[in-house]
Amino acid sequence: MIYQTKKEKPSLDEIFSPRGVAIVGASPSGGWATSVLQFLKEAEFPNIYPVNPNYQEVLGLPCYPSLGSIPGPVDHVIVSIRAESVLELLDECAAKGVKSVHFFTAGFSETGNTERAGLEKAMLDKAKAGGFRIIGPNSLGLMVPKSRLVNNIRIPLEPGPIAVISQSGGYVEDIPLFGSPRGLRFSKIVSYGNALDVNECELLEYFSIDPETRIIAIYIEGVRDGRRFVKALREATARKPVVICKGGTTEAGRRTTRSHTASLTSSVAVFNALCRQMKAIQVDDIEELTDMLVALQFVNPLPQGSGVAIIGAGGGISVQAADEMEKAGLHLPPFSPEAQSELKGFLPLAGSIFSNPLDADTIYSPKNIAAALRVVGRVPDVHMLIYHLGFHPVSRWRGGRFSAETYLKPVSDAIREVQQTTGKPVLLALRPPPDLESMKEFLTAQEAFVAAGLPVFHSMRRTARAMARLVAWRQTQNSLPLNQDH
Amino acid sequence: MIYQTKKEKPSLDEIFSPRGVAIVGASPSGGWATSVLQFLKEAEFPNIYPVNPNYQEVLGLPCYPSLGSIPGPVDHVIVSIRAESVLELLDECAAKGVKSVHFFTAGFSETGNTERAGLEKAMLDKAKAGGFRIIGPNSLGLMVPKSRLVNNIRIPLEPGPIAVISQSGGYVEDIPLFGSPRGLRFSKIVSYGNALDVNECELLEYFSIDPETRIIAIYIEGVRDGRRFVKALREATARKPVVICKGGTTEAGRRTTRSHTASLTSSVAVFNALCRQMKAIQVDDIEELTDMLVALQFVNPLPQGSGVAIIGAGGGISVQAADEMEKAGLHLPPFSPEAQSELKGFLPLAGSIFSNPLDADTIYSPKNIAAALRVVGRVPDVHMLIYHLGFHPVSRWRGGRFSAETYLKPVSDAIREVQQTTGKPVLLALRPPPDLESMKEFLTAQEAFVAAGLPVFHSMRRTARAMARLVAWRQTQNSLPLNQDH
Repeated sequence: MIYQTKKEKPSLDEIFSPRGVAIVGASPSGGWATSVLQFLKEAEFPNIYPVNPNYQEVLGLPCYPSLGSIPGPVDHVIVSIRAESVLELLDECAAKGVKSVHFFTAGFSETGNTERAGLEKAMLDKAKAGGFRIIGPNSLGLMVPKSRLVNNIRIPLEPGPIAVISQSGGYVEDIPLFGSPRGLRFSKIVSYGNALDVNECELLEYFSIDPETRIIAIYIEGVRDGRRFVKALREATARKPVVICKGGTTEAGRRTTRSHTASLTSSVAVFNALCRQMKAIQVDDIEELTDMLVALQFVNPLPQGSGVAIIGAGGGISVQAADEMEKAGLHLPPFSPEAQSELKGFLPLAGSIFSNPLDADTIYSPKNIAAALRVVGRVPDVHMLIYHLGFHPVSRWRGGRFSAETYLKPVSDAIREVQQTTGKPVLLALRPPPDLESMKEFLTAQEAFVAAGLPVFHSMRRTARAMARLVAWRQTQNSLPLNQDH
Repeated sequence: MIYQTKKEKPSLDEIFSPRGVAIVGASPSGGWATSVLQFLKEAEFPNIYPVNPNYQEVLGLPCYPSLGSIPGPVDHVIVSIRAESVLELLDECAAKGVKSVHFFTAGFSETGNTERAGLEKAMLDKAKAGGFRIIGPNSLGLMVPKSRLVNNIRIPLEPGPIAVISQSGGYVEDIPLFGSPRGLRFSKIVSYGNALDVNECELLEYFSIDPETRIIAIYIEGVRDGRRFVKALREATARKPVVICKGGTTEAGRRTTRSHTASLTSSVAVFNALCRQMKAIQVDDIEELTDMLVALQFVNPLPQGSGVAIIGAGGGISVQAADEMEKAGLHLPPFSPEAQSELKGFLPLAGSIFSNPLDADTIYSPKNIAAALRVVGRVPDVHMLIYHLGFHPVSRWRGGRFSAETYLKPVSDAIREVQQTTGKPVLLALRPPPDLESMKEFLTAQEAFVAAGLPVFHSMRRTARAMARLVAWRQTQNSLPLNQDH
């Protein structure tokens, strides 16, 4: 079928579940396209077709000279070739009847070159005529765990509640890379780059009604159609929590976004006001975005107020914890004399602080942790509990105290029990250590807590900022049923 | 010698180089004192005497029933026994003629118990009469690398320029634990806890004229003698950079400091104004304190202004980097058309951003990094250069690209050359990864850069904040010769 005609453009649903994927530009000598191929193979995506006229085989798969020579149906095409060759390829895509073409290829409008911007226009015309969609160019494209459609990183194939819309490719790697060890699971992830065709507005509209998506995360540098974005954001935030990280909030940042994704950023003040008004949850960077997603996916039940009880060991860290919580807008209700004397019943006087934060070295015994959580969980003004833990190459950590069986399991069980009996969430603040041996302990502990369905944060500041945002957001959402799928 | 008389109190110099150390409370069943013993043994401290009437031997060393039964001289006594037994022990100390007694033991004035506060008073009287000094109680005591006097962690025995004065014991562990892999080296570290005798003022006075100390770091919760502290701070900051982290900057934090180290904290506004007036470098937490120490120990030459050039790979991270620098008060001068066209001479157009930050995927080749640093280092408004690098479990990192020989060594060499030829410092922003395999790569890279004498930071935000503070501080110090020992 070589003839072309104007066709209906495919829905995003069709794009997110391709039957076959071609990878144009894969080669035995490596590179980005080849690593996508590798990960698609590992994910056991059913129909993968490397395309490169110079090779018979790539990574053990038959390699095709052109899209037309591929025997089965190809719905999605992943492209990493020189910008100069893309128009020809798009003719092949039309002839093959594909639904979507993702251009990893960069070097278009973001270079500031007029000719290259004109090339983008021609690409869009071809896509419209050919009845397929373009993702990018200058983007990392799609990751859809349910469809086994992965990308150049190993994302979990277990689907989850989070959709990610990102103008940046690097961040589309970072959110699952840093988030999945903390339990984040995704419905769909889209890096849309220069947004030639599929853009932030269409994606936001789609995810706001996507039944597989409960939480929406956006990294955005600039918006092309402000009116449409505002409408999409209003509709999305009425249905689901939407977390937004905006790049380019300073003059230097804005200059960079122009070259990064050819974005014209609006006034930061206007954007911030919009987020506030729409009840979107705005964060300052990708670390905070990841933290917020952990809070939204795992904090359960949601805190009914801003009162925090903290338990752990270390005076300095307790002082800092108190400072961080108050600075973020949370508060630490003092423990009642009754609660304090209960705590003194099983914790030693020396070296302990019985106020809030509770600081006691023997808090490392699972029995004491459980008992302390139960006591402070009953304090009326406390709405959430934090247990903090460092991983040091210090002698007290040795000897298997943090073993899965004698420590992690009983502590996780105790936490879940306290959450159930008090109706208050318990959070873990685990501090990543500086050395490899302690890092192993840290990762083992994190894995155990995540497996128990608990939210894990990596510093007091980051815990405080995420929880303050969660509390503020919750106050705008009293009528909504949340975390209903836990 | 059982008789006592009023003696001259030992100087801090004497306390920092003890001939023999007794560890009272060490036992074969472990605990804090035993871990100190272990690390003293590993550090090959010459005369270590465990004291415990219940054992003949601890960790293979002869154990003594009392201080009096120790054959050699004992200058320093480390104590971890119940608070109830301390007065009796102090009589033994006087009889033995020790110079200093460090009480790890807690449970004194910080408990809020009047009787326990009275016990502290009696301890101080005994120390005055016996002619020795008390460190603590409720403290981690001393670490003096030069004297091989270590504590419960493995600090580097190679001495360095940094003195640490900390009211918190945990933070006295954290600063070397997190800082030494980044190259921080210490002259003396003192955790003074409840400050019964040796306190922050005396220590600050000492370190301001200590020839082995070039940089002073302070973690403080409260000051007892404001007038003396102001005077000491004025004298110290006139001679050396002084970095201060104050715990208890909020109401909840202040409540906690009272229980942590019995500190009465002054108004935060007053304290902040004092630091500004004295040209002390104030930081918000221990992470920032560590970053600031890295900047002060390793950034060399000092930047002559606030202009930053950033090179690395990743559009999102470049945008964030630009935002972070500007938010911190630094600025990113745009690269001149000449500099941009030079860069385009060896970096590919597609996927690259030739503005500041420079974003180019091929920046991973040592040759290109060196060339790019040379080009941007010549931009007139640029006063410092940042090379940023992430460690991902992504395919492009595989295949030994970051090997010591083919990558780390040539990049370090190039950076040192650029520093020398441009007179501008180059900083590394290495992002710690989320998984163990990448962590190995990260630690290898960090070790190589640190060994080359380069400053390593762990995030763009943290780099920006430390460098903004360094630039601001430098502007107050134009007349001082700095980093003279590099």
